[in-house]
Amino acid sequence: MGDDGGHAAAGRWGFGANALLAGISASSIRAVLNVVMSEVREDGPRPVLPLAHGDPACFSCFRTTSVAEEAIVDAVRSGNFNSYASTQGIVPARCAIAKYLSRDLPHKLSPDDIFVTAGCSQAIEIVISALASPGANILLPRPGYPFYLARSAFSGLEARHFDLLPDKGWEIDLEAVEALADENTVAIVLVNPSNPCGNVFSHQHLAKVAETAKKLGILVIADEVYGHLTFGNVPFTPMAAFGKIVPVLTLGSISKRWVVPGWRLGWIAKCGPDGVFEHNKFVDNVRVLLNITTDPATFIQSAVPTILENTENEFFQKTVDILKKAADICYDKLKEIDCITCPHKPEGSMFVMVKLNVSHLEDIHDDTEFCSMLAKEESVIVLPGKKHYAGVSLGLKNWLRVTFAIEPSSLEEALGRLKSFCNRHAKQSK
Amino acid sequence: MGDDGGHAAAGRWGFGANALLAGISASSIRAVLNVVMSEVREDGPRPVLPLAHGDPACFSCFRTTSVAEEAIVDAVRSGNFNSYASTQGIVPARCAIAKYLSRDLPHKLSPDDIFVTAGCSQAIEIVISALASPGANILLPRPGYPFYLARSAFSGLEARHFDLLPDKGWEIDLEAVEALADENTVAIVLVNPSNPCGNVFSHQHLAKVAETAKKLGILVIADEVYGHLTFGNVPFTPMAAFGKIVPVLTLGSISKRWVVPGWRLGWIAKCGPDGVFEHNKFVDNVRVLLNITTDPATFIQSAVPTILENTENEFFQKTVDILKKAADICYDKLKEIDCITCPHKPEGSMFVMVKLNVSHLEDIHDDTEFCSMLAKEESVIVLPGKKHYAGVSLGLKNWLRVTFAIEPSSLEEALGRLKSFCNRHAKQSK
Ligand SMILES: Cc1ncc(COP(=O)(O)O)c(C=O)c1O
Ligand SMILES: Cc1ncc(COP(=O)(O)O)c(C=O)c1O
Repeated sequence: MGDDGGHAAAGRWGFGANALLAGISASSIRAVLNVVMSEVREDGPRPVLPLAHGDPACFSCFRTTSVAEEAIVDAVRSGNFNSYASTQGIVPARCAIAKYLSRDLPHKLSPDDIFVTAGCSQAIEIVISALASPGANILLPRPGYPFYLARSAFSGLEARHFDLLPDKGWEIDLEAVEALADENTVAIVLVNPSNPCGNVFSHQHLAKVAETAKKLGILVIADEVYGHLTFGNVPFTPMAAFGKIVPVLTLGSISKRWVVPGWRLGWIAKCGPDGVFEHNKFVDNVRVLLNITTDPATFIQSAVPTILENTENEFFQKTVDILKKAADICYDKLKEIDCITCPHKPEGSMFVMVKLNVSHLEDIHDDTEFCSMLAKEESVIVLPGKKHYAGVSLGLKNWLRVTFAIEPSSLEEALGRLKSFCNRHAKQSK
Repeated sequence: MGDDGGHAAAGRWGFGANALLAGISASSIRAVLNVVMSEVREDGPRPVLPLAHGDPACFSCFRTTSVAEEAIVDAVRSGNFNSYASTQGIVPARCAIAKYLSRDLPHKLSPDDIFVTAGCSQAIEIVISALASPGANILLPRPGYPFYLARSAFSGLEARHFDLLPDKGWEIDLEAVEALADENTVAIVLVNPSNPCGNVFSHQHLAKVAETAKKLGILVIADEVYGHLTFGNVPFTPMAAFGKIVPVLTLGSISKRWVVPGWRLGWIAKCGPDGVFEHNKFVDNVRVLLNITTDPATFIQSAVPTILENTENEFFQKTVDILKKAADICYDKLKEIDCITCPHKPEGSMFVMVKLNVSHLEDIHDDTEFCSMLAKEESVIVLPGKKHYAGVSLGLKNWLRVTFAIEPSSLEEALGRLKSFCNRHAKQSK
């Protein structure tokens, strides 16, 4: 081996790989995307069209509101927010988040119910770490957002998967939830509006989730990072509406609704029957974790009241209108493709989950191969749902997650390329 | 118990405290400060003078440069940095950090050697997690910066403490290091300029550290978050100067030199014998961890080249001049106090470590009691060095850490109050 010398020298040093981490990489979307993206021809004639990432911020039609930008500018220029923030987040930010979330609730959250985090990602990290007692398990949706699995694996929290049902509009299989749970189950996770499925849970279905969680004595973790990004018939219901009967942790951020995922500002909001979070020492755990992890930038925290209170309705409406248009395009174009089935028209979030019928394809054998060849031949990126060696990624083999949150004309172009790719690889004899 | 009803209702829910976290809280500075601060009389007649925190950003004399503020403003207003950043940090930021660090090195770092983090805190988090293989141990300085211990405990990495020697200008006890290390030791941590001791390690001493680490086959983690904040006779030597003979991870941030700890922008820089970090899969581990943790805000990353390259020398000089003046005031005033001994005049960072001679005091029995009473009676906050139940905090009982990085006239006022407090509680019979 050419690098033997290096190895020999390097081998003298005693710090080794933390083997625990090897299993985690595959369940990170970034890691999977890096693999798919590596297929793209750098010198390809056509621009790369990314239908894999939930990050429309690079498209000018999704540019955030100047209200938000100027709130940051004012905070930085004031010079008053260069210090470390307090553990739970600065008070004005917590007040504003409590007010923002309370607008849609039958009861009021208080600033003490809010923990400001560096994006919804850090909210997930903190919540999973806080719950990861030895022997505990958590119920995760399949298909799901892989970050939950990655963080559970990292924390040694056993993950058990329940299905989302494509034929029932991606509702939660609540019978499966009951069958999976035992006395060591601490929580159930749901993502609403859903990543990766694109559905929105009805008030009625969430009421059933609350009843089931109550019966099982488990916490509901409601990832509402796509909250209010809905454009179908089902209105968005925050899970905390059921906070009087079951403990709910609402996780959210400004990343999606304000289209600023790079700003890293999110929250955990607790809402539950009296004293439940204090009694179970959950709040203490969260504070410890916040003390030993990084914070969102203080000046960004200080811009939160203006961002949450002063954003014009027109901005929200414009974003939702584009997403609706894009979802329509996506659904219509995908219907024309023979080897792809879309069980449910997206009505929220930025994604749709579609089934790949590999039996219709000549020379493609699974979703990962499909995505790699698509990247190579068409410079179009979609995310495979395939199981990975270390666990599940999205968790559904031979499904694909397609993002429609890109500029609509690019979306049409991308779906056109996808169609000709599928036609080119279709079985002739069918 | 008045809250029995609540308890009973709450007890039905099966998510419990993660007991692993209970032990960690005490080794967080924030947690210790919360206890001391709780003693302050809210309605006290005099302003609270904080000599405990390394955060001078709230004092106008330490206001950061407008170069940095305007770099952020430009980045936000461009609208080009609202997206998620890449795993390792955006390329321009990595290039700028590599260039910045290389200025003081005999060799050049490349952008691939840099991992951008949300402050030096996240750099510590990532490095400790990456090294925490089951059974491994790490060597930490005593007195130390408690975050290392907290993160090690969190990751199940065994911490072993070597002493810093007050009578030798707080040099590392290298004999103790050799005695502590075994085949499971992965790294030694040093903080230079030192928190909490205020000394700066000489080139010669660091060369010995490098030799020792080489002999033991362990990595050196050099926390240089106070890099260039020196004002004594010993110039700052970056540990990576020895990167050809021993693997070095340099951790840093803009928090201290630019007085913007609230901005959360830091880095890990690797520098070692050829291939050592790749061979040991350390880089893979770090990437996995960066994939499953939050990032520094993208627009802040994008401001990094301007911040690192365009800050006027006058700004740096002004900051160091104030720190030098403050360190002089601090040292001189502390010398006048009978029950306090200062073994080494501070020559870097923002802190000095002083010994409390409790035998000189009438009614105060240890450092924690001292700090609590001082907070209560004088509204002056200093940090106790006491051991805590769950491990060590700073790690030295009956020592105090005093921050001098506050506005000099407030510092004089605070030290005046400290002196009258000590006189009031002094043993009469001495
Ligand atoms: C379901 C879900 N939760 C959380 C996140 C992370 O959000 P943030 O950017 O606020 O960290 C994402 C991002 O795509 C997501 O899809
Ligand atoms: C030695 C040391 N390392 C790291 C940090 C954290 O720095 P940052 O604000 O960049 O996270 C501090 C902060 O006080 C420190 O004193």
